[in-house]
Amino acid sequence: MTSDAPSGSLVKALLPESEMPTHWYNIQADLPEPMAPHLHPGTREPLGPEDLAPLFPMSLIEQEVTPERYIEIPEAVQEIYRLWRPSPLIRARRLEKALGTSARIYYKYEGTSPVGSHKPNTAVAQAYYNAAEGITKLTTETGAGQWGASLAFAGQAFGIEVEVWQVKASFESKPYRRMLMETFGASVHPSPSDLTEAGRSFLAKDPDTPGSLGMAVSEAVEVAAGEPEARYSLGSVLNHVCLHQTVIGEEALKQLGIFGEDAPDYVYGCAGGGSNLAGLAFPFIRENLAGARTQIIAVEPTACPSLTEGEFRYDHGDVAGLTPLMKMYTLGQDFVPDPIHSGGLRYHGMAPLVSHVKHLGLLDSMAVEQNAAFAAGVEFAKAEGIVPAPESTHALAGAMAKAREHTGEAGTGPSIVIGLSGHGFLDLPAYESFVRGEMG
Amino acid sequence: MTSDAPSGSLVKALLPESEMPTHWYNIQADLPEPMAPHLHPGTREPLGPEDLAPLFPMSLIEQEVTPERYIEIPEAVQEIYRLWRPSPLIRARRLEKALGTSARIYYKYEGTSPVGSHKPNTAVAQAYYNAAEGITKLTTETGAGQWGASLAFAGQAFGIEVEVWQVKASFESKPYRRMLMETFGASVHPSPSDLTEAGRSFLAKDPDTPGSLGMAVSEAVEVAAGEPEARYSLGSVLNHVCLHQTVIGEEALKQLGIFGEDAPDYVYGCAGGGSNLAGLAFPFIRENLAGARTQIIAVEPTACPSLTEGEFRYDHGDVAGLTPLMKMYTLGQDFVPDPIHSGGLRYHGMAPLVSHVKHLGLLDSMAVEQNAAFAAGVEFAKAEGIVPAPESTHALAGAMAKAREHTGEAGTGPSIVIGLSGHGFLDLPAYESFVRGEMG
Repeated sequence: MTSDAPSGSLVKALLPESEMPTHWYNIQADLPEPMAPHLHPGTREPLGPEDLAPLFPMSLIEQEVTPERYIEIPEAVQEIYRLWRPSPLIRARRLEKALGTSARIYYKYEGTSPVGSHKPNTAVAQAYYNAAEGITKLTTETGAGQWGASLAFAGQAFGIEVEVWQVKASFESKPYRRMLMETFGASVHPSPSDLTEAGRSFLAKDPDTPGSLGMAVSEAVEVAAGEPEARYSLGSVLNHVCLHQTVIGEEALKQLGIFGEDAPDYVYGCAGGGSNLAGLAFPFIRENLAGARTQIIAVEPTACPSLTEGEFRYDHGDVAGLTPLMKMYTLGQDFVPDPIHSGGLRYHGMAPLVSHVKHLGLLDSMAVEQNAAFAAGVEFAKAEGIVPAPESTHALAGAMAKAREHTGEAGTGPSIVIGLSGHGFLDLPAYESFVRGEMG
Repeated sequence: MTSDAPSGSLVKALLPESEMPTHWYNIQADLPEPMAPHLHPGTREPLGPEDLAPLFPMSLIEQEVTPERYIEIPEAVQEIYRLWRPSPLIRARRLEKALGTSARIYYKYEGTSPVGSHKPNTAVAQAYYNAAEGITKLTTETGAGQWGASLAFAGQAFGIEVEVWQVKASFESKPYRRMLMETFGASVHPSPSDLTEAGRSFLAKDPDTPGSLGMAVSEAVEVAAGEPEARYSLGSVLNHVCLHQTVIGEEALKQLGIFGEDAPDYVYGCAGGGSNLAGLAFPFIRENLAGARTQIIAVEPTACPSLTEGEFRYDHGDVAGLTPLMKMYTLGQDFVPDPIHSGGLRYHGMAPLVSHVKHLGLLDSMAVEQNAAFAAGVEFAKAEGIVPAPESTHALAGAMAKAREHTGEAGTGPSIVIGLSGHGFLDLPAYESFVRGEMG
């Protein structure tokens, strides 16, 4: 829907803390069909809470399946959110000029968080619920380190020890986020490590393995399952993770109102595991179910287009086939994407909840080439002064292509909202590769 | 002055864009004695505009000496400021709790800018004035790259080519900010380079020299002086640079009002070249000259305590003795500080305007050890979720020590404002060194 006019020259919609969302939005309450249940990998029977209890606290297991539409955000979580939330919604006026578009472009920027991305939205919530149930240690895996750093920050805020297994190749080649984890007080091990049975067996097979997320999951899960006061924490894919991220979309809806916008015409978000997209998009989909007509577009890399080209079927979440079976769009558990710079988008599957929403026809998807994504990222950086995370450049590329289709008078075209999931300060080597023409 | 009470649970004072300062504040208009003039390095006579014209545009030369109290910020500069300004003033409630202090602690955070520090405040202004006078190329030097990246961003915004000479040791060991400069479209050379006479002569003396800021200045100045449409740009020390940074303090004053604070009891800022401190402190000093009683404290590293232990006398701005003589607090032009991680605080002198203000008794200074600074930085990061720039940790250390002196009921003690000049995402190796106990 186009609105009457942009409101003056406003650039940043500043939502006061008093209007920060007090509830997460659970889209499961509003969907016309329920999701298919996760299945036990051995029995292929629907999973029960008792299957998950060794790994997750009961309150998060309940959030995984609750039919409640709104879940109250505990005050202790809100207190930490207030360090950086509400995050800004910014009108990209300079980008609009650079593109010569009539579209009104907005971006919701999650880069102001402690680690520079959306991940702490769920890390803080997960640390809180674990602490509330007496858990004193959380384990997790991380690739480039965005998720591990988020949990490191969140854990120490609630007095929880955090132990991270980082894929060895990243541990060695991308040390900055490891340093960030250590600065927040976490301990970080390269995976595979000799600290777990799983790790020792991987090392026995190949002492020089660079590791993988799948291996790191195995190590983190083994340690959590083996200690009564430890649990495991996951940064994407699961329903409760998508739930915690909905503060992004709830804020964006209010902030569009500050700009005098009704429901926007388009919402673009990048999608890897799916939680960033879910966080931005689900509140807009709720509005669509109530009559709004916003087109929601998930943007993936052509190197890993699970929503765009995958099959909607039961598949394992990991390579080894040890996780529950989840019904989702998948390229197959053994699909190995090319080593693109957007580590957060290299997942063979997609959050089951996002997959279900796509299957119901409530969102669209597209895939863009890495070079096109970085070209959009550099153009955005020059105009708006933010170097975006490589993942976020995919959403930018999709949205900027749409904006270029509209060339009339400034401000009179469609309204476009982009999820800018984070900044790229720690991803500058990827930009160098692009700027020098060395990207494949 | 203590205020009645903190206003509710507010954490971030969000100043609307409509209240962004429209003028920079020129403290020279209010000082009881004028500054001593800069002197020509050859004649030792006061410098005239014609001496500076080959290097700077006339509008900046005029800003260097103007008696006007307020200088209007051009709309084209404000347009770019609005991408990240007003920057947030944040009540450090979690830090207060962690310290067990009765003080009310606020920090003014400049890390949301395009390069993550205060430097773009002047880079954008300088690029604008150069473009307005038809300049098509700017040259500059940079150490770690904060300044070079700021000018790279600002230059492309006004269609100006930016050429940066980066100290070779940093060029090779700290590639991330070089990549940021290149992403914004600048060309970056390691200094000394074979592109200038000065560079070739440095290389002839020592082909393996790691370079220095002094050498890089010589190269940037040589190129600017040799091309009619090129000029040189400096990121600190000069009066017009301090002037452009005063948006920081002007915003902070308004934002303290949102919290219900009168003039604060203390303002702490780190001081290297002096422009960050000036930007925060000068508007508070104006209020002091009108009757307020805020104590202003510049915090330096013990490795380079120019204000705290230097002499107030004429000295050169560079090592080679080629720059004008400036009256300032100095450790001597040939003083070489230890290689601490706060590259921005390793300057032998201090901005003449900051020096003059200190000489007049309008600000105090102190020095802190590097380890104490980083300890404060880590404690701050864990509480507030921002890893501070190493330079900023000095201001934190000074302020947190003061806060610890006050242990009564929360919120009833003195009010303290800290200048948090930037974030430390690109300085994580320094944090690793501290966390692992390997810092000297």
